[in-house]
Amino acid sequence: MANKVSVLVAGSWGTAIASVLADNDLDVTLWSRNEQQVAEINGEHRNHRFLADALLSPRIRATSSIQEALSGKDAVFVVAPSAAMRDVAVQIRPYLTENTLLVHATKGFETGSLKRMSSVLADELPDYDASRIVVLSGPSHAEEVIRQCPTTVVVASASEQAADAVQDLLINNYFRVYTNPDVVGVEVGGALKNIIALGAGLTDGLGYGDNAKAALLTRGLAEISRLGTAMGGNPLTFAGLAGIGDLVVTCTSKHSRNWRAGYLLAQGHPLEEVLKQMGMVVEGVKTTQAAYTLSRQYDVTMPIADELYRVLFEGKSPEAAVEDLMGRGRTHEIEEVAKPVQTKWFG
Amino acid sequence: MANKVSVLVAGSWGTAIASVLADNDLDVTLWSRNEQQVAEINGEHRNHRFLADALLSPRIRATSSIQEALSGKDAVFVVAPSAAMRDVAVQIRPYLTENTLLVHATKGFETGSLKRMSSVLADELPDYDASRIVVLSGPSHAEEVIRQCPTTVVVASASEQAADAVQDLLINNYFRVYTNPDVVGVEVGGALKNIIALGAGLTDGLGYGDNAKAALLTRGLAEISRLGTAMGGNPLTFAGLAGIGDLVVTCTSKHSRNWRAGYLLAQGHPLEEVLKQMGMVVEGVKTTQAAYTLSRQYDVTMPIADELYRVLFEGKSPEAAVEDLMGRGRTHEIEEVAKPVQTKWFG
Repeated sequence: MANKVSVLVAGSWGTAIASVLADNDLDVTLWSRNEQQVAEINGEHRNHRFLADALLSPRIRATSSIQEALSGKDAVFVVAPSAAMRDVAVQIRPYLTENTLLVHATKGFETGSLKRMSSVLADELPDYDASRIVVLSGPSHAEEVIRQCPTTVVVASASEQAADAVQDLLINNYFRVYTNPDVVGVEVGGALKNIIALGAGLTDGLGYGDNAKAALLTRGLAEISRLGTAMGGNPLTFAGLAGIGDLVVTCTSKHSRNWRAGYLLAQGHPLEEVLKQMGMVVEGVKTTQAAYTLSRQYDVTMPIADELYRVLFEGKSPEAAVEDLMGRGRTHEIEEVAKPVQTKWFG
Repeated sequence: MANKVSVLVAGSWGTAIASVLADNDLDVTLWSRNEQQVAEINGEHRNHRFLADALLSPRIRATSSIQEALSGKDAVFVVAPSAAMRDVAVQIRPYLTENTLLVHATKGFETGSLKRMSSVLADELPDYDASRIVVLSGPSHAEEVIRQCPTTVVVASASEQAADAVQDLLINNYFRVYTNPDVVGVEVGGALKNIIALGAGLTDGLGYGDNAKAALLTRGLAEISRLGTAMGGNPLTFAGLAGIGDLVVTCTSKHSRNWRAGYLLAQGHPLEEVLKQMGMVVEGVKTTQAAYTLSRQYDVTMPIADELYRVLFEGKSPEAAVEDLMGRGRTHEIEEVAKPVQTKWFG
């Protein structure tokens, strides 16, 4: 059983995960490049920038030294932005042993390569057994986790032993953890949901109702599942916490950057202006591009992602996009599952 | 191609379906026992009681004569309360021919027998080919459909020809219709979602957050899927419009009676008082009882439905129910699919 764990980096979700681990009586080291943030966490037990209202456990110690953060740790949780994942992997490489549990909780594909985050980690960690990498996902606003609101998540790994060990580290009476062998499905679900969140902002901005948003979620899930299955995921994963669970929480929250970007687009603001106004990365925009490319690479149809692509990058009006989605040919609801899928580690 | 259709009865959903059919240039007869409502629909093209703001198409003609409503019709849409389904079946029996399309859009099990609505129809219509019965479901607030907001639904039948024919009758540029061969799954999904809607009101009433509601939806879907699959449904149906789609629209709408009942229960009001205050049937309460019985009959675990049953009928506190749900043993996310399922009519 691990008892020394580290979390990189001290954003809102990293801090919330550190908090769960500290509540489970583990000694948690939280890494941040920002010295002021380190001092604040160690002195005041606060992370003002990301979780202003929360008083953190004194079991969480922050450091800006990567060596201090990682030396002699039993488990490392990586919660970096997707664009930083490759750099982080290089930085953690010297400190990982074959027994270290390696968990990531980052949603998105790498720009350019379109690789999943566990593949990026595997690329840069040739001496680490990639089948033991664990991914953490699910519907989990950090602001609620830190207040100990009931939350459920999924941990996926090709290694049942690794998934079980991470479940043991995280599970408690407000944070319920399910295991799943389907790394691909959990990663793809987490990445693609941001497209649908953007679409939800768009339909809300157009003044469409709850029926339209439920349709977007459901049919969006169908195409996420289609691409995810083609990439090797299990279709049932997309009906789970990393699929529909995360979709629901993202699409119904008006605090999401993706939702807000879609809402502004629907009101006629061009993409450049929206991105400028947001002042930060809108993952759903990058991911729409990724899905557009991946769906062609894997030869699956993704009508909603395609229409969003046209709205974002080809100047199509949102109204025309919805009209074209509603006017497609008549179809059945369920596609045949292309191949048998693994639903358990054994049997 | 059918061109004379009838709808029973003139509630909000029946009137909205009549409206879709009229928009598709069909002659629609809408049956109501209430003479005043009949006069209002024919005279003012209004249904004040159920859809106060809508101006109805003059193609919708109301009648209180069952004979006039049903004679010589190509398709009959039954949208009766679940408790009235058996009576309605007896009434329509004399008018159905083997060529009449029979569609129902009623969600729920029959009290006592716990039969699905298509079974109740089949019981009372021994001369009609039960495999041709079509069920209509999905995320569709009537108030939005009547305003022509984009809406998606599913029609399920063991007969592909019957499902396709009903798809043809209903589909248009704001009402998108998907077909599915899985009658059992579509009916079970529609019925059981009301339990989760009740649970959503309960978690909202307890002040839990979006994470908890997303968890309830996702894990609720897992147990709906578990019972539905045991009863013969296809697990993928529950990831579709009659499953997650309907769940999302019901659980995020604060206008739902089920949500409201859950909310009041969470505030400490006892069930009898809540039901009295609501003044009408709360389907989720009846369906929780049905699920409690069915889950034992089919030997599947439904922890959320069980805990709701204890809150509703055994005086358990909602807080204790949530605590027990979060504290169950560690589990995997995906159960093995028990048996092969039919996802298409052929192949």
